[in-house]
Amino acid sequence: MDIKALSKAHPDHWMRAAAIRALTLDAVAAANSGHSGMPIGMADVATVLWSKHMKFDAANPTWPDRDRFILSAGHGSMLLYSLLYLVGDAQITLDEVRNFRQWGARTAGHPENFHADAIEMTTGPLGQGIAHSVGFAMAEEILRARFGKQAQDHRTWVIAGDGCLMEGVSQEAITLAGRYELSRLTVFWDNNGITIDGKVSLSDRTDQVARFRAANWHVQEIDGHDPVAIDAAIEAAKAVTDKPSMIACKTHIALGHAAQDTSKGHGALTNAEQNTAARDAWGWVCGPFEVPEDVKSWWEAAGSRGAAEREAWEARMAGMSERKQADLSRVYAGDVPKKLSAVIRALKKQNSEAAPNVATRKASEMVLEVVNPVMSETVGGSADLTGSNNTKTGDMGVFDIDNRKGRYVYWGIREHGMASAMNGMALHGGIRPYGGTFMAFTDYARPAMRLAALQRIPTVFVMTHDSIGLGEDGPTHQPVEHLAISRATPNTFVFRPADIVETAEAWEIALSQKATPSVLSLTRQNLPTLRTQHKTNNLTEKGAYVLADSDGKRQVILLATGSEVEIAVAARDVLQAEGIGTRVVSMPCWELFEAQDEAYRRKVLPAGPVRVGIEAATRFGWDRWLMGERGKEAKAAFVGMTGFGASAPAETLYEKFGISSQAVVAAAKGLL
Amino acid sequence: MDIKALSKAHPDHWMRAAAIRALTLDAVAAANSGHSGMPIGMADVATVLWSKHMKFDAANPTWPDRDRFILSAGHGSMLLYSLLYLVGDAQITLDEVRNFRQWGARTAGHPENFHADAIEMTTGPLGQGIAHSVGFAMAEEILRARFGKQAQDHRTWVIAGDGCLMEGVSQEAITLAGRYELSRLTVFWDNNGITIDGKVSLSDRTDQVARFRAANWHVQEIDGHDPVAIDAAIEAAKAVTDKPSMIACKTHIALGHAAQDTSKGHGALTNAEQNTAARDAWGWVCGPFEVPEDVKSWWEAAGSRGAAEREAWEARMAGMSERKQADLSRVYAGDVPKKLSAVIRALKKQNSEAAPNVATRKASEMVLEVVNPVMSETVGGSADLTGSNNTKTGDMGVFDIDNRKGRYVYWGIREHGMASAMNGMALHGGIRPYGGTFMAFTDYARPAMRLAALQRIPTVFVMTHDSIGLGEDGPTHQPVEHLAISRATPNTFVFRPADIVETAEAWEIALSQKATPSVLSLTRQNLPTLRTQHKTNNLTEKGAYVLADSDGKRQVILLATGSEVEIAVAARDVLQAEGIGTRVVSMPCWELFEAQDEAYRRKVLPAGPVRVGIEAATRFGWDRWLMGERGKEAKAAFVGMTGFGASAPAETLYEKFGISSQAVVAAAKGLL
Repeated sequence: MDIKALSKAHPDHWMRAAAIRALTLDAVAAANSGHSGMPIGMADVATVLWSKHMKFDAANPTWPDRDRFILSAGHGSMLLYSLLYLVGDAQITLDEVRNFRQWGARTAGHPENFHADAIEMTTGPLGQGIAHSVGFAMAEEILRARFGKQAQDHRTWVIAGDGCLMEGVSQEAITLAGRYELSRLTVFWDNNGITIDGKVSLSDRTDQVARFRAANWHVQEIDGHDPVAIDAAIEAAKAVTDKPSMIACKTHIALGHAAQDTSKGHGALTNAEQNTAARDAWGWVCGPFEVPEDVKSWWEAAGSRGAAEREAWEARMAGMSERKQADLSRVYAGDVPKKLSAVIRALKKQNSEAAPNVATRKASEMVLEVVNPVMSETVGGSADLTGSNNTKTGDMGVFDIDNRKGRYVYWGIREHGMASAMNGMALHGGIRPYGGTFMAFTDYARPAMRLAALQRIPTVFVMTHDSIGLGEDGPTHQPVEHLAISRATPNTFVFRPADIVETAEAWEIALSQKATPSVLSLTRQNLPTLRTQHKTNNLTEKGAYVLADSDGKRQVILLATGSEVEIAVAARDVLQAEGIGTRVVSMPCWELFEAQDEAYRRKVLPAGPVRVGIEAATRFGWDRWLMGERGKEAKAAFVGMTGFGASAPAETLYEKFGISSQAVVAAAKGLL
Repeated sequence: MDIKALSKAHPDHWMRAAAIRALTLDAVAAANSGHSGMPIGMADVATVLWSKHMKFDAANPTWPDRDRFILSAGHGSMLLYSLLYLVGDAQITLDEVRNFRQWGARTAGHPENFHADAIEMTTGPLGQGIAHSVGFAMAEEILRARFGKQAQDHRTWVIAGDGCLMEGVSQEAITLAGRYELSRLTVFWDNNGITIDGKVSLSDRTDQVARFRAANWHVQEIDGHDPVAIDAAIEAAKAVTDKPSMIACKTHIALGHAAQDTSKGHGALTNAEQNTAARDAWGWVCGPFEVPEDVKSWWEAAGSRGAAEREAWEARMAGMSERKQADLSRVYAGDVPKKLSAVIRALKKQNSEAAPNVATRKASEMVLEVVNPVMSETVGGSADLTGSNNTKTGDMGVFDIDNRKGRYVYWGIREHGMASAMNGMALHGGIRPYGGTFMAFTDYARPAMRLAALQRIPTVFVMTHDSIGLGEDGPTHQPVEHLAISRATPNTFVFRPADIVETAEAWEIALSQKATPSVLSLTRQNLPTLRTQHKTNNLTEKGAYVLADSDGKRQVILLATGSEVEIAVAARDVLQAEGIGTRVVSMPCWELFEAQDEAYRRKVLPAGPVRVGIEAATRFGWDRWLMGERGKEAKAAFVGMTGFGASAPAETLYEKFGISSQAVVAAAKGLL
């Protein structure tokens, strides 16, 4: 690569981009860890994008109508930090850049959305940025349709690397974006031909251009170091209105460094001599972490370029009806409408009286039927199991090319892409996404479910067919470890409601969260209503509560969740008939119970009685409640699964795997 | 669709295919559950493939040189069961077909490889069949290169649906197959345009033909109901030697049924009247589960078509050198070579003396350096983290187009595709696959890791960078819940070795399994050798053992795994110095410890002393050892993580998150 020719051709641009390169080199060297090559390679693209095209106001990083920038290749985090420092972001200061990858710094190894307002999302697990971006772009389409162009009119820009494009989730993402013609979405592919193990061709020879075209994308191929070509390509992408755009940017990783075009260049470039040589090659004469004043002030001007647009937007907002203003503010703040608790209460009251015998997936639909009309911000969907997940209600409309107001998304058989895109919607703001699949396919969505928890966003995962109760489809479709998987994940609420009342309560909590995702574990099979006495309070909010107390001396506590609470209640009847005082504790949400004070927990789970846990899943994690919380090993038993399920009708499976009231009675009596 | 014209054009073929259709209709109706439409739609393709092209001998379903048939669209299981019954498979009898989806039947809702020898793999979770097939095809290439065409010379055939192709993992699979030019792999795409939610176009409009071509596949498009076209396309696919083949078969789901070409046709067709009408349309006059004798005997002839080839193969085998014969038998049986235990012992001895300070990922490499030369059946790899996972040893050679003998695979950034393909290799037989990624990316590989456990195959997942000990990359890359995730999964060994000796022992166990996958949880950071006294016995085989016993009265038991055993040992030193008798129990494999008899478990974990568990992960699951197994809540504590990690140097993180010998000492003393 002829660096001299590049810098000569566009000297001003060159120095502005060189600032990114130099800051990256300095920060990674100081941290002695990180990834130098990608920011160095993509500095030209980022410079043109941020200074000429991206709509943002550095002083107001949360302005709702800003363009969103997603660094899918998150390991190149110094690209983002350099940009933010240069444009004058108040949080990413030079000190933060100096503290790259150190404890307490906002400049974490990979971008973390909770570290700075201007960081739109957490990236690092490859493919997630591009997959989340689909949700960002969908959210913009939906909000633009709903609130008008005056309120929402922006774009989503993504930088993705070879790694992102090799991950399977990228295929789910690009086919979704192509199907829904998300023309406000532009992906820059950092086509540097290098991965950690060597050349990309070592493991991949896909024709990416043809692949994106096959998914209905507009594709351009450019020299990623030519600012004129970059500018023209972005203009062309902006002109396309019926396709997302991919701009394949041929770049040189670690441009101008001894490690250029090598896998070494992908990692941390820390050799002082080589780094000096690179700076010389770039014509960069400043000391470490120094940026010439003219370059910095040019960047700061780029950072305030959008201020006027933001002000104009604010003026337009002020001109909207008060109701619309309030609504937009509310949905962006993630506040629930006041009506929510009223409709939930009414539904609880009605159904505690009617006491229907319905699957909790159906109960969930009944809840959504009353929730969706009062929460216009919900966007539902399913990974091709709409009728099974019961996620669609009558009033939503279907999101499509000609119906951007539609609030239901047919995600196709793309659990992972759906989960990622839902996260993207939640991160974008203004939308409260939920989506369904079979609970066993938590496995497919896991990387995104974890990111929901890590990013502190309230995505709702509607996981139906939550046990062997799904019956004939067999062990591939029967979760046994998936409750444990979600419960083991920090900052995740796992709800396993026992009936329609608990289902309504779980939804109310899930929809009220601002920083915690929820997993709703719902049955395929019908369940009786157990909460037949109406309580205005949300009992699920306590995580666990006494559903039925013992008559007489309390000798046994049965702890159960979801479909097995019915079994616990039946077992209690038998035990009580034999004069054995038995309490049933329903535990719809372990995490919320954990968060209660000890006095409440002790009231629910006092020392003394024998305890039997009942759940059609593995015991893993249950010992906390059976032997901890004042329990004792000698007085604890568990009725559940010990391995994978099988294919047979549900009732047969419950019988054959020994999950029955008889088994619970026997276990309790065996401990007395 | 003009059924009459179809049946008239090829009347014999028609009736043979109709047998599949009728059996499917009958079995699904009897079960009142299942998927009728897909087998009905793909009956023509399957008939041509099985009767004319596929190399198999129904009487010998485990013949090592058979072609492999993979029903990636596993919900269409009746296609496979019908075929197996028709060709005379001894296990899939008519009774089994009648018992479709019932308890104890081999004919489970989705095909389960452990239910019948002729079922190559478990399918149902979409995309897994096509992804596993890459491993099947790679295994054949490797074994053909190694043992010669006389011994291994077969093909892999896959039927995949729209769902399989929408799943992201299919992209990882097809780009791998294209990159490695797996020309013995042929995928039939059941292009019926229907998913559960409606038309495919509702959620996907990808040009699949262009997509596969972009991944270096040979692609043909045919009428999937025309036996002549099917035959010609298969011939053409067989003639291609430098590309895998995709045959896009335009089909009609539920052909000839009232539900044809509808999403209803995808499910269980149970309407008796409509089913009668469909049988009439097909010209099928037999009663339920009946097949005309001429049709059945024609199919049985197809089933024994390969007998001569199998006999010829056996004769060729008998002509090979005794050593080669023994070797092929051994690798197919999954038996380890006798030398394995000797090299492991020697390595243990040498290193218990040398006591190196190495990361367990490096220790793993040191083990592989002695194992790979004596186990020619190992095939290693990494998802683009070769240098970090330490999975490559000097002697392996790299698997590539021009080096099919290579035993190391550069999988690219495809954790999921890698895991699936490894499973495929294990299922194929003759190969013992292992592959690495960062442990946090267990999430990406989960669907395949679960399938390894369910399918009872010994895939080895090398998961390095197994805690906050990875440092600066931050929380996206730091597993905290992933030990729990794998431990909660049935039939999975999770090894977290504390030093090089335990690492060697863990590998020995993992490589000796025939029906259980292993997860090796390995550190990025260096660890001291703790097992400095050589024992010939494999102590890890017991799952947990006393690493250092108390001096004097035993007051404390410290339980730890992996990198935290070092901390436990340091804490013991402090406690002992204060006169507090402290035992350290290393627990490299919970599952194996669980399998020990109570006497042994009691010896290791006696009642009485206080217990502190130490692991740089969440507590989830630990209560079993802390409060169960004769423990008590009041005498139990845990030192570990309570949430996600952070980005900083590893030592800082251990300090800030309070995982230290001081914290352990304080916890223990607090309980005394």
